[in-house]
This record gives sequence, structure tokens and C-alpha cells, in this order.
Amino acid sequence: MCGTENTTLAPRRPAVPNGTPSPDPVINLDQGDPTMYEAYWRGMGDRCSLVISGSEVMSYLGGSPGGACWFLEPKLEKSIRRIHGLVRNAAADAEDGHHVVVGTGSSQLLQAALYALCPPDQPEPTSVVCAAPYYSCYKEIAELLQSKLYKWEGDAHNFNKDGPFIEIVTSPNNPDGLIRKPVVNSPNGRLIYDLAYYWPHYTPITHQADYDIMLFTISKCTGHAGSRIGWAIVKDKEVAAKMTKFMEVTTIGVSRESQLRAAKLLGIICDDCQAFSTNTKSQNFFDYSKRLLTERWDKLHEVVKRSETFSLSKFPKDYCLFSDRFYETRPD
Amino acid sequence: MCGTENTTLAPRRPAVPNGTPSPDPVINLDQGDPTMYEAYWRGMGDRCSLVISGSEVMSYLGGSPGGACWFLEPKLEKSIRRIHGLVRNAAADAEDGHHVVVGTGSSQLLQAALYALCPPDQPEPTSVVCAAPYYSCYKEIAELLQSKLYKWEGDAHNFNKDGPFIEIVTSPNNPDGLIRKPVVNSPNGRLIYDLAYYWPHYTPITHQADYDIMLFTISKCTGHAGSRIGWAIVKDKEVAAKMTKFMEVTTIGVSRESQLRAAKLLGIICDDCQAFSTNTKSQNFFDYSKRLLTERWDKLHEVVKRSETFSLSKFPKDYCLFSDRFYETRPD
Repeated sequence: MCGTENTTLAPRRPAVPNGTPSPDPVINLDQGDPTMYEAYWRGMGDRCSLVISGSEVMSYLGGSPGGACWFLEPKLEKSIRRIHGLVRNAAADAEDGHHVVVGTGSSQLLQAALYALCPPDQPEPTSVVCAAPYYSCYKEIAELLQSKLYKWEGDAHNFNKDGPFIEIVTSPNNPDGLIRKPVVNSPNGRLIYDLAYYWPHYTPITHQADYDIMLFTISKCTGHAGSRIGWAIVKDKEVAAKMTKFMEVTTIGVSRESQLRAAKLLGIICDDCQAFSTNTKSQNFFDYSKRLLTERWDKLHEVVKRSETFSLSKFPKDYCLFSDRFYETRPD
Repeated sequence: MCGTENTTLAPRRPAVPNGTPSPDPVINLDQGDPTMYEAYWRGMGDRCSLVISGSEVMSYLGGSPGGACWFLEPKLEKSIRRIHGLVRNAAADAEDGHHVVVGTGSSQLLQAALYALCPPDQPEPTSVVCAAPYYSCYKEIAELLQSKLYKWEGDAHNFNKDGPFIEIVTSPNNPDGLIRKPVVNSPNGRLIYDLAYYWPHYTPITHQADYDIMLFTISKCTGHAGSRIGWAIVKDKEVAAKMTKFMEVTTIGVSRESQLRAAKLLGIICDDCQAFSTNTKSQNFFDYSKRLLTERWDKLHEVVKRSETFSLSKFPKDYCLFSDRFYETRPD
């Protein structure tokens, strides 16, 4: 689990793209860019088009009065709760006290969660860890501004300090696609679950996740990376409020145009899943995308079989609550 | 200049909106929300509508190859350079080495500039100052993560340290609308100019600004605060690259939908200014908005004249290069 030789060949989210003088090797963003779904959306025609007049969504304010996140578009909140209810990948009912916080991608939400979980008056920065191999941007995010609130401490397997810590649990994991659980055994930790890939086109939905902080992104769900829309499902209202505060100070909210587009696309996916639920579900986005990923994965298997340098992870078959079938994880 | 009794009555940008448990007094966002321009954009009808199909702008990548900012939409870059060339408020020609960096509002760009200007290996954090009265969010931004790179040191008038510093120069100033210059007299400083209000509906364009880092935002230019689009004009390519890096790590770019909308709206303003330039310019956005602000300002004057508690700043008349007229600053 700690090596990289047994993983997929390319990072599935951007790591260190060009645009900056950096001592690190530059990895091209194309490798993590989910443009493979473009053909699906093109085939949907005008039904998915968003039209915004010049006078719409001009205000900073977009959220529902009394909601935890004052800039979350009500339409997006509705679509988010609806798709999680339909797919059953995460508990996200308002009635059960699950708050939705929107961010400019899940990267911003991860920073917001670190801010929310790290008290400002600690003698030492809170440790941040993640089991290797981990998404390289976590380290970059945690170290960028040399914050006194938190400190990147690397591989969670090696963490043995007594103080407070935050463990990021990425499941399915980036870059290796494995299903993950926390690895640090200590009562002093808080957990942030990055569930960007916990959707039925990538992996069987084996259970309804119900953790304190769960991060998702439209980039991996629908493929609309350019929209920069992520969301968090958060149980504790005060944590949700602090995360909202982070977005408020750093970007005064989140693009309302992107939120409306994400709301529409998620809503259409839900409509189609429900329309086909009495049928074969053969045309919904998740089934289309699962087939696409399976084809790509099969091709990769063919290539790797001929290689002596690389091998690929073996993924167990699992029963998917959403698809009502058994299948293997298929990383993008 | 340091007091607040001689200023406008409400903050012109959001300060501490609701949505968070905070010991600070909560100021409602409505006070800084530029929704007064909605009627203008409504009157423009379908001409300003943006239509985005489900398969457009899906990729992370949007920028021109070889540009300083890999996620800047070429259409937005073109509109930004065009409007500055037309209004003559800022030097922004590519041929003269002015780089454009887009951000999720100018707040993100301010953080990006702090990151870019503060070397990571200094023994002490770089001081950040601004002449009082200043936009309250500067302090919040600089203190949020307790960065070791920089430290908020408050009023630039009181700054007398020998070490490196950054002075934020806001002109016209928020909250008092005054035209500003740097106040710290030291060779160790770097300057960030926040020119959010340096547009002809707020103040006469007396000169073409040509500073190292100049920040603008669509919120104050066209009134589209909900889009969260800001931009920086940056002379030093390495600074532009570091600012881009900041946006890359914190939000992996900027909403492409919002960028396309901003590009369209700025382009329409330019088209209309040029269409009326041989006429009276009576219908262009800036003249419409200037009249609106003058009416509001006159009403405020009437109210304040009857008050014994408040007074209003006196603004000198100046010749505006863009409008070809003399007039006074009219803060929103």
C-alpha cells in the first residue's frame, strides 16, 4: 500500500502543473483532466445548457436564510442532497443535521476544514497526515503559507506523536484507487474524508458514508473540472460555520454561475437515473461512465501485461447499493 | 484621513458578514453589495446573456499556451486588456510586459500577491501595512492562517520597522473614497495597489496607473459580485507566475463559467463605449452608473446636512481622461 510500483500509471488529479518556477518535476494537468466525459455531455444537447442573463446572480448573497453557508445556491444544495440520497454514497439529509458547504473546488474545502479543526491558541501546530501513497497536493496545500495552525507530517503510517492531529482519509484513494480507512490509532485525531471518487462509475457503493467531514467535487463526479465546484457534508454546525468563514475571507464566496451549472448537471443526472430506474439504467451518466472506464482499464491491462516494469492493483468485486450489481473498482 | 467620522457611512465592500460565530460585530453584506447596477443589465436584455452547453469548459485548462496564468480564459484576457486600453485607468498592454492573472475575486489575488512577495526563508515574517482607514478584510486576510510568511502590522502611518514590508495602497480608498499614495518612506517595501474603484463611474481617471501589481475586481467594475472574478496586472513575470501558483494550489484555477461571463460583460461595455464615443457617451455603462451614484450621493448629502453627528468628505473636481469632463469622486 505504501509503494507506488503497484499503482495506476498517472496521477488522477493534477499535481504540480506548469505556470510556476518550481524545483519539483512538472506534471502536466492533462493527466488528471476528466475530459473523457465530454462526449456524454455533448450528446445531451441543449438540455444541459445553462443560460444566465446579464442581470442574474449579481449579488454576493446566494444562500438560504438561516443556512450554514450564506453563499450556497439553494438549487445546488437541493441537487447535492438529492444525488447523495439517490446514489446512497453519503448521508446528506438536512433533517439529520448534515450541513452542506460549497467551495471553489474541494481543495479550498480541505483548507477550510484544516482552518476549522485547528484551534488558533495551541502551543504547537496541529499535525496533518495521510497514509502514503497520497495525493501530492495535500502536502502543497498544508505547507503553502507556513501556517502556525497546522503542519504537514507526511505518511500517517509513521505518525506517532501524542498531540492533536488531523488524518485525511481518501477513499477510493488517489493515486491507487484503494478503499481506505484511518490508520492512526489515537484518540487525539480528527478525520477529513476525501470522497472525490466515491461514485458508482469508479467503485461499487458498498455503504452510505456518514463521517464528520466528507469532501466531494464536481470534477470527478460529472467531469466539470473547469467549474471549480466542490462541496463538504459536515455534521457539526460550528465546523460548517468556520469552514464558511474561511471561504468568506479568502474568496468572499464561490462563483454563482458555476454553482447554478453544477446544480443543473447534478439534477439532470438524478432525473435520468430515476427515469431509468424501472428499466436497465443503461443510459444514465454513471453507467455510461462506468463502461467508459472499464474499456480504458481493459486497454491499460493489455499494455501492462506486456510490460516487465509495471503492474496494476487488483481490486476485489463488491456489491453496489446503487447499481444493484457486483463489480470492481475502476479508477479513471 | 485617519479618522472615520469624516467618511462615508457604510463600508463599500463586505467586511464581516454573517455565517460564522465571531466576537466581531456582524456587518451585513448588503451594505457592500453592488446590486444597484442590476437595472442597467436588465435593460440590456438577451444581448448580455451567456449560454454554456453541458460539454463546454469542462477541462481545468483554459489559458493561452505560454501565458503567465495557465487558467486565464483568452477571451477574458482580451476583454481586460481592451477595457483598460479604452478607459486608460491602467497600463495593461501585453507588448509592454504587463501580465494578467485572474483570481476568485481580488481577495484571492491579494493573498496571492502576499505569497509571491514574501520569501519563504526570511528570519521574520514580512510586515503588511495599509494607511488607516482601511478595508477591514485586509487584516482578516493577512491574519487568517497565522502565516510565517507575513504579519499584519496595521496602519502604515505608524510603521517604523527597518525590515522588509508590503504596503497595500487602495485608491480610491475603501471606505473613504480618497485618492491615495504610499505613506511609508523606506526602500525596503513592495507595493500592492488595490484599484477596485479606479473606474470612471466612481472617480475621474486622472492618469494611467502603471504600478508593479494592480488589483481589480468585476464586483466594482460591472457590479457582478456573485461571479467572484478579480484580476491582477503584474509587471514581473516571476511574480505573476508565483501568484498563479498560489491560485493553482488553493483552488486549481478560477471558475471558467464566471470568466466567460466577465469576458462578455466587459466586452459589451467596451463595444458600447466605442459606439457612443463619437456621440455623447450618454448610454454607456460608466455614464449610466456615474449618474446613478451622483443621484445617490446627492440624496445622502441632503440627509447628512440635517445631521449633527455625521459629515461627508469633500472631493476635488478633476479632469477625467476617459469621459473628457471635470467631475468629483462619487463613492458607491
